[in-house]
Amino acid sequence: MNLKSFKDNVIPSFEEEMLGYIRENGTEKESLHEAMVYSLEAGGKRIRPLLLLATIQSLGGDSRKGYAVSAALEFIHTYSLIHDDLPAMDNDDLRRGKPTSHIVYGEDTAILAGDALLTQAFEIIAASDASPEKKVKLILALAKSAGPEGMILGQMADIQGETKDLSLEELQFIHRNKTGELLKFPIYAACVIVDAAKEVEEQLMGYAEHIGLAYQIRDDILDVIGNVEEIGKNTGMDAAHNKSTYPGLLTLEGAKKALNQELTTAKLNLLTVEQISRDSARPVQINLLVEIIDLLVID
Amino acid sequence: MNLKSFKDNVIPSFEEEMLGYIRENGTEKESLHEAMVYSLEAGGKRIRPLLLLATIQSLGGDSRKGYAVSAALEFIHTYSLIHDDLPAMDNDDLRRGKPTSHIVYGEDTAILAGDALLTQAFEIIAASDASPEKKVKLILALAKSAGPEGMILGQMADIQGETKDLSLEELQFIHRNKTGELLKFPIYAACVIVDAAKEVEEQLMGYAEHIGLAYQIRDDILDVIGNVEEIGKNTGMDAAHNKSTYPGLLTLEGAKKALNQELTTAKLNLLTVEQISRDSARPVQINLLVEIIDLLVID
Repeated sequence: MNLKSFKDNVIPSFEEEMLGYIRENGTEKESLHEAMVYSLEAGGKRIRPLLLLATIQSLGGDSRKGYAVSAALEFIHTYSLIHDDLPAMDNDDLRRGKPTSHIVYGEDTAILAGDALLTQAFEIIAASDASPEKKVKLILALAKSAGPEGMILGQMADIQGETKDLSLEELQFIHRNKTGELLKFPIYAACVIVDAAKEVEEQLMGYAEHIGLAYQIRDDILDVIGNVEEIGKNTGMDAAHNKSTYPGLLTLEGAKKALNQELTTAKLNLLTVEQISRDSARPVQINLLVEIIDLLVID
Repeated sequence: MNLKSFKDNVIPSFEEEMLGYIRENGTEKESLHEAMVYSLEAGGKRIRPLLLLATIQSLGGDSRKGYAVSAALEFIHTYSLIHDDLPAMDNDDLRRGKPTSHIVYGEDTAILAGDALLTQAFEIIAASDASPEKKVKLILALAKSAGPEGMILGQMADIQGETKDLSLEELQFIHRNKTGELLKFPIYAACVIVDAAKEVEEQLMGYAEHIGLAYQIRDDILDVIGNVEEIGKNTGMDAAHNKSTYPGLLTLEGAKKALNQELTTAKLNLLTVEQISRDSARPVQINLLVEIIDLLVID
């Protein structure tokens, strides 16, 4: 199965399950749940659930076993976007080609909808079908990845870095936390769900780390060379805000080179996984994860 | 042991453990963790941890076993206050006699500090010493109590109710969710932690329900008759904002009567607990919980 058919096969049913977690409580003007659904449906590429579900599949597991955790992850990713877009934060009125939550529902509801998505994420995992041991592991990892030593630390560093020129090291610190942690979590979660062998998990976490950095370098490059229709948000914002970026620090060509380097290393991790699992009871099928690398290539 | 000596005995060591969860990560201008600590230290009466720890003690357990969950609960309570005080929400510049988070740290950091406290709350429980089964139960209950079918639903209803006259039923719906859920959770958590008998738990949850309503009725009454030095926040705000309140709906005397009624019923729950546990292996000592009722009395 290639990535496209895998995606067409699992993402719609995953999305249905994800939206099913939002309960409409039937009161007259229930903008809280409406706002939660609005931002979840605004959607984007579902890269995090795709990573989680494709990794389960690659490890020979049933991808449905990853739906609940993927939903929790997408809830958290979505909350972070809602709060990020607020006037006191990035003050964005457009996200994925649609007006942002606070533009549609007002700032108060947007804040609460974000809080609600964040809180319910942990409820979803706690109420899921996995064993208590696995649920605790997943909740612990998700809270760490998304919390004040992970994503939120990165957001804070990002805000504080806006007013100064960052070194490459500082920029990587921001990205490793702000976006990297939540891109690593799905790979880790898949390994927990299917009880992956330790040495397989280690290589896959290396893959996740490089994919995460590649993702952010690519985002910075697209802000320079992309257009709003293609990527669904305003471009040229980094330059307009005088933000430190990979193209700014490395030149556009240098950033493209760094991107390719991350992707090459990620691929090496996968080849190692293939090799070390070849003679085991459960050989890992790496093709879906290789295709995810290909998605991130910029020619 | 009476409530005062119990409180003097456990709350300082609990607070030390709670603040110990905040890791300073040592970067130069780390306002995120500073803001988290600032609001946690602003403190107030620690009524939720006190309820949890006193219930464990009453049930014959070791109150230290409730520190982690109490910390998580206080993290969530504190985040809700930070977000509640934001300009887009209640726009309060004073809380417990101190400037609110966004006044001190700016709106962006206040939003992130709230998000961080909320996220880390679940990490604290997941990383605690209880069995995986108990941790999952506690996380599930806390997320439900604090989430879009609990506290946040109540906050949303509160915001939407600000612009109209509410019925007593609507007001109770708001309070049951906005404040009641997080006042019931500590009693439930204590019962989980010490494996309380089902019929004891039922009565204690009745106690929690009535305490929760009493707490809110009392808050409304104090907003009318209290003064800023005594209760640590501006008074007369409800009237100034034309907010529906118990004194507004029931008259001040009627509200005092409703308060007493809730407290009397709560006490009946405790007397029932005492009676049904009298001949069991673990008789419940209700005196601390009775004293908590007494704290809420307004003469």
